[in-house]
Amino acid sequence: MKGWSEMLPRSRFAPLPPFVREVAGGVTSPKGFLAVGVASGVKKRAKLDLGVLMSERPCVSAATFTSNAAAAAPVRLTRETADCGHLRAVVVNAGNANACTGKQGLADAARMRLLAADRLRLPVEQVAVASTGLIGVHLPMDKIEPGIAAAAGAVAGGSGAASAEAFATAIRTTDKHAKYGALEVETGEGAVRLGFAAKGCGMISPNMATMLCFVTCDAVVGESAWTDLMRAAVVGSFNRITVDGQESTNDMVLGFCNGASGVAPGDEGLSRLGEALQAALLSLAVSIVADGEGSTRTMRLSVTGASDTTRAEAVARAVANSPLVKTAFYGRDANWGRIMQAIGQALGRDGHQALPARIAYEDVVIVEKGQPAALDAVQQGRLAEIMHQPEIDLTVALNGPGAVSTVYFSDLTHDYVTLNAEYST
Amino acid sequence: MKGWSEMLPRSRFAPLPPFVREVAGGVTSPKGFLAVGVASGVKKRAKLDLGVLMSERPCVSAATFTSNAAAAAPVRLTRETADCGHLRAVVVNAGNANACTGKQGLADAARMRLLAADRLRLPVEQVAVASTGLIGVHLPMDKIEPGIAAAAGAVAGGSGAASAEAFATAIRTTDKHAKYGALEVETGEGAVRLGFAAKGCGMISPNMATMLCFVTCDAVVGESAWTDLMRAAVVGSFNRITVDGQESTNDMVLGFCNGASGVAPGDEGLSRLGEALQAALLSLAVSIVADGEGSTRTMRLSVTGASDTTRAEAVARAVANSPLVKTAFYGRDANWGRIMQAIGQALGRDGHQALPARIAYEDVVIVEKGQPAALDAVQQGRLAEIMHQPEIDLTVALNGPGAVSTVYFSDLTHDYVTLNAEYST
Repeated sequence: MKGWSEMLPRSRFAPLPPFVREVAGGVTSPKGFLAVGVASGVKKRAKLDLGVLMSERPCVSAATFTSNAAAAAPVRLTRETADCGHLRAVVVNAGNANACTGKQGLADAARMRLLAADRLRLPVEQVAVASTGLIGVHLPMDKIEPGIAAAAGAVAGGSGAASAEAFATAIRTTDKHAKYGALEVETGEGAVRLGFAAKGCGMISPNMATMLCFVTCDAVVGESAWTDLMRAAVVGSFNRITVDGQESTNDMVLGFCNGASGVAPGDEGLSRLGEALQAALLSLAVSIVADGEGSTRTMRLSVTGASDTTRAEAVARAVANSPLVKTAFYGRDANWGRIMQAIGQALGRDGHQALPARIAYEDVVIVEKGQPAALDAVQQGRLAEIMHQPEIDLTVALNGPGAVSTVYFSDLTHDYVTLNAEYST
Repeated sequence: MKGWSEMLPRSRFAPLPPFVREVAGGVTSPKGFLAVGVASGVKKRAKLDLGVLMSERPCVSAATFTSNAAAAAPVRLTRETADCGHLRAVVVNAGNANACTGKQGLADAARMRLLAADRLRLPVEQVAVASTGLIGVHLPMDKIEPGIAAAAGAVAGGSGAASAEAFATAIRTTDKHAKYGALEVETGEGAVRLGFAAKGCGMISPNMATMLCFVTCDAVVGESAWTDLMRAAVVGSFNRITVDGQESTNDMVLGFCNGASGVAPGDEGLSRLGEALQAALLSLAVSIVADGEGSTRTMRLSVTGASDTTRAEAVARAVANSPLVKTAFYGRDANWGRIMQAIGQALGRDGHQALPARIAYEDVVIVEKGQPAALDAVQQGRLAEIMHQPEIDLTVALNGPGAVSTVYFSDLTHDYVTLNAEYST
């Protein structure tokens, strides 16, 4: 089975800490987790499209959901009726998002959960449901039900320790590759493992909604500590990326921690575990941006010197979501005027004192005090090189007290338009 | 000289009221206004690129400026140091925005104003300055200065009554056609005239910033009434359009009203004048969207039933600026799932009660109570027709008390990406 570095493109934006070691596999690499992926027939040509993941023992868990008001049925069901601190399993289908499907959709999601719980011999409130795919179409339950029976039956039968790849494959929609991996963390008290499976290639792809991520861990960690670790990692990773600024109806991140390693990290160990988790989720998040629809490069934008965090965030998002900024990167054009315009729009008229700003592309300062810097021939050459890198580091230093924000974004390309215009409902 | 309907594409979104008559010309059609356009050499190939507009007599005036914190030098100079209630003239250059140009930029804008005021024999505070074009490059004053001398000299010499077209042409950048016209309004107390010249084809085009609009009127109207009329017309037109969601550093709308007709409209007449002004600015605004970069169609989106105006506005903007919604219109795909997703994102989690919504494309209700309506073959056919119209009317009815918002937007196309990616600084 492949591991972390085969399945995720290396990004210099997300280095792994020194106390972390890559191991083969994915969500089943930590002890006590089973997973399978099956072909239910929702996707054509017998592609894997339905997965079940379960911990063999009780878990603490942490869940993050989309804040979209049009949240899909599986999100609403799980958020509103599951015991999100003690989930032990999740059933996921791809190819149909079960979103904008009304009462029937909620009933279908509940049926998915009931079937899975039944086969897994778990109380329904310990089973989460996730879906990704077409919006506004009812689930083909005649395919989903046998699929769940097969998948959950296999897991309940004890198979699935080696099926992390199948699970990660089953949750894909238009992702160019499966996104999964596993890491071993040296906590000081002993080694524990983290496993991951994620999907996403736009906040919402050609009507194929969603970013999903499932995390497993075999450390002995309390519920509130695990929730804190997961929340911090999500805030620093999935909440910091944008492909097209569009938040899906189905986004969900679930983290399961079952203690099966018997290793209970101390304060220092917990801090290492958190650091590993954050690095891993950031790596997955950057991988989603790199796999963004039509994307040809990934930018990291750091905004500093804002008057407060809200402003820093607004400036970062305004630049990252500007179609003019994004097309300029596609054109390999260091068009700082568009960055300045987006900053100015985000700040509004009373933000004038926060300008002039400094703008740098990697180590080349292109704007100083709000005005173009005089670049010599060497700097011009360096800038041209930078614009052809697959990853570009940008900094915008405002003229204020110091609040900061970082976002990761992709460019806007002909392929993005093609992918999203040529799709037909 | 051409008039209103030759220069502006007819839009059913912006019908003219019955008491309004099209007349030939533009900003010089109302009495007592002179305008010229000259080729200063800033644009290549002797294209017109510098204009001066003046009222022969004292005016009341109203000015609206971009709220972008990175406002360009001419905006800052005019906003901060002119008598914006009594402007009599404006000098405009195209090809260079004089934005992000620091102290030198402010000095250059002040020099433009001083030269124009000198030739026009007006106090500097009665002269506005506007620029549009490249960001971050200092004005070539060696070309601008003789240009102003020639243009303002001609106006001061009394020529320019027939040069509305030249003026409207001189303020263009990448606009596909000049946008100007004139209307006669029957006020009840007598006929008065309105003249217009506008430019814009993106909130910010391939680094060619800006929406500019200049309005002239020969009615006898007081300063505060004129300001009210202009403000209402701008709010209902230019503030309601989006091509790419990007607000320029140079946007400016100036309205001059000089009383030269001798006709003082009463209450009913003022109301007619306001209605005519609003219809005209909306027509210009829709024309800017239709001329939006790469645009192939114009959508009017009306959001109703929101809990308050801010929410209505947020939902309308979220849909209108969603790249997924915009690419779907380019692909002639009635992809309501993307509209629902954008609505949900704008409302956020606590907006759930505002959904389910009703979504209609023209007369075809495609979503009812948040779920896809069952369309028969006739409705399917009608929907396919609608998706090929040059103008499409959309309604989103939320499930709330009733606040409304309307925006006009263009689609997102391969040509938009080409125009904005292939431009090189």
